[in-house]
Amino acid sequence: MKMLDAAARTVMERCDLLARYSEDADCLTRRYATVPLRQANDVVASWMLAAGMTVHHDYIGNVIGRYEGQASNARTMLFGSHLDTVCAAGKYDGILGVLVPLACVERLHKQGRRLPFAIEVLGFADEEGVRYHTAYLGSRAVAGTFDPAILRYLDDDGISMADAIRSFGGQPDPALLQTARWRPEALLGYCEVHIEQGPVLEAHDLPIGVVSSISGQHRYMLHFSGQAGHAGTVPMAMRHDALCAASEYILAVEALACQTSGLVATVGKLRVSPGASNVIPGYVSASLDVRHQDDEVLARVSTELRQQALRIGRERGVTVDWHAVQQNKTVPCSPYLSSLVRRAIEEESIPVYSLASGAGHDAVAMSDLTEVAMLFVRCKGGISHHADESVRTEDVAVSIRIVDRLLDHLCSMGG
Amino acid sequence: MKMLDAAARTVMERCDLLARYSEDADCLTRRYATVPLRQANDVVASWMLAAGMTVHHDYIGNVIGRYEGQASNARTMLFGSHLDTVCAAGKYDGILGVLVPLACVERLHKQGRRLPFAIEVLGFADEEGVRYHTAYLGSRAVAGTFDPAILRYLDDDGISMADAIRSFGGQPDPALLQTARWRPEALLGYCEVHIEQGPVLEAHDLPIGVVSSISGQHRYMLHFSGQAGHAGTVPMAMRHDALCAASEYILAVEALACQTSGLVATVGKLRVSPGASNVIPGYVSASLDVRHQDDEVLARVSTELRQQALRIGRERGVTVDWHAVQQNKTVPCSPYLSSLVRRAIEEESIPVYSLASGAGHDAVAMSDLTEVAMLFVRCKGGISHHADESVRTEDVAVSIRIVDRLLDHLCSMGG
Repeated sequence: MKMLDAAARTVMERCDLLARYSEDADCLTRRYATVPLRQANDVVASWMLAAGMTVHHDYIGNVIGRYEGQASNARTMLFGSHLDTVCAAGKYDGILGVLVPLACVERLHKQGRRLPFAIEVLGFADEEGVRYHTAYLGSRAVAGTFDPAILRYLDDDGISMADAIRSFGGQPDPALLQTARWRPEALLGYCEVHIEQGPVLEAHDLPIGVVSSISGQHRYMLHFSGQAGHAGTVPMAMRHDALCAASEYILAVEALACQTSGLVATVGKLRVSPGASNVIPGYVSASLDVRHQDDEVLARVSTELRQQALRIGRERGVTVDWHAVQQNKTVPCSPYLSSLVRRAIEEESIPVYSLASGAGHDAVAMSDLTEVAMLFVRCKGGISHHADESVRTEDVAVSIRIVDRLLDHLCSMGG
Repeated sequence: MKMLDAAARTVMERCDLLARYSEDADCLTRRYATVPLRQANDVVASWMLAAGMTVHHDYIGNVIGRYEGQASNARTMLFGSHLDTVCAAGKYDGILGVLVPLACVERLHKQGRRLPFAIEVLGFADEEGVRYHTAYLGSRAVAGTFDPAILRYLDDDGISMADAIRSFGGQPDPALLQTARWRPEALLGYCEVHIEQGPVLEAHDLPIGVVSSISGQHRYMLHFSGQAGHAGTVPMAMRHDALCAASEYILAVEALACQTSGLVATVGKLRVSPGASNVIPGYVSASLDVRHQDDEVLARVSTELRQQALRIGRERGVTVDWHAVQQNKTVPCSPYLSSLVRRAIEEESIPVYSLASGAGHDAVAMSDLTEVAMLFVRCKGGISHHADESVRTEDVAVSIRIVDRLLDHLCSMGG
């Protein structure tokens, strides 16, 4: 127990240390294929080597540590998450999913233990998608689902992704990037430890939870076109106020989400035109983000929300255009791997709490390659993507013990 | 009748001609103390001279034409409106209130007629307040209510108002600008012809209406501070969504305005922060503009709307800050002058329609000096402050006949 607490403290110190590799002096920003990411990769690689792992950097720029099993033809259990960050990020989002399994490998290495299977820890070079506005670059390359069309994408400085890959020491070769390194049968699965990025575990006073699935997500843009006019001279009964229509819609979205168990729906972005205090809004655009762990519920709710938008528009003489931006299906977590995680939690005498992940993770991309499981660690106030992102050392210690037990259970199941 | 229709056509042609004096090549923009306003002033002055008027340019840059009465000690009836425009303006807002009485003076001049009173036509140099973000510069200077503190205001190019006045040929002398040129007893009153800038006359199929009062206007800024969070991970029940609170408020404003006869209330400006599709809005600022012709109703409604904002915030765990920006009282129009206008309308066999002006006009500032009356001319679709602003020649002809009859009635009342 003492040693594990020491391991958790090491993980926390390493999170602090990695946070120094930043593009910004004042805050943590570490985008894909930047010098700070190179430095973070190199530091992580040195820890991997010290833990008895072999290390390689793949074509896209992921850093991968491998701890061999008892036999050279053993299957491999994958762990990982991402080492890139959003702008002005916290220290734990992604990073924890690399450092926690690394701590477990270190223990094995110290004990001189080999398992019936190999372990790989993957530090993905891009999950957040900040630099090229497209997420999961690292895990998609590993899963063999990388879309070569995006190699032509330019960042804000006009540097193409292909050039960024090259300067990062990778190879922007579509054939290499599109091909998975693994045959699925060579894998036991993929497990990702991640901060919850939400307030649910904290509200339940739990250090840890097991993820049931990663919710499907639909994104839409709505355009409300009414009629602008003078705020002083157009009587209320003659108005076609686009903002009033949008407001009615926002409350309808909220009401339906509150009525539907497990649903979250958000209007996060709103633009009002002309946007003057003395002019009736003639036009409003609004984003809509809807997530649920059941794709059928999600489809039904999306249809209902579209109908409500059109009804509100009709009643108010406001034209409503509805555009689908993105429709991601739910990714179910592996019942088998999750059952081993649940057992590990029970053995720690912690109530097993299962929750859907409303946020996307590398596990989404990895699910195209193998079975995935996820473990959520409580974070303070549910805050993420912010310098205030915070986790407790004792919760990290719990997550290390869970992964340790998961490895043990995988051994006893024959690897 | 024929001659009057010709006069209306002349007014329309002059509106077209004045629209050429613009700061923008593509649209009509004529701000205070600019070269295009100088050109417009000079052209209007030439028409005034041709109509037998003496012309002078006052300290602030208004152009003023005077048609003497039968006796040198006669009182003076003022007419006017503004020659400046908003950005990308229409051709009639303001201009019509200078050109219509000018057409009436032209008729008198052609007939060689002098009235028992003098007539002055005022072309105000600034009503819209675009350049210095403060309205009624021209009419306040005439009324003697000019605030010399604003002489230090800078425009977007860093030019002070004092310098702009100087370069426009005026004198930025606080004492001169603060002093009314008139003793009130020397005046019969002020009458302003203006496009309605609303859809009410059109809806009633009427060319013209008489203004009962210029509505009081309260302006507020509201700040809703909730809690930002991840759109995927924070359950609906744990949210404090500032945009949902603002939306509920916007609908409450709309509902109260619809229930209260004569009230208009508008949220025209809304800013959502952080404003990303996948982030719950943590902060929203919203403008509120409320107008009514009864100051007591306006005060009661403003109090009620403040209470509603605070209630909504309380119920949602969202902090609401309420700031008063501006509180203008209602300006009642002169019962005497308005009765003469009503009689003129009746004599034209047009149903007399009385309406409050929801928009501010130079008459607001002029009411500090003398009795004011206003005549609204129907405009197409209620559109103003836009290139699509449109009035019918026959409606302008009606407005000329009404002003003609008003002058006659003032004569028969003894001037």
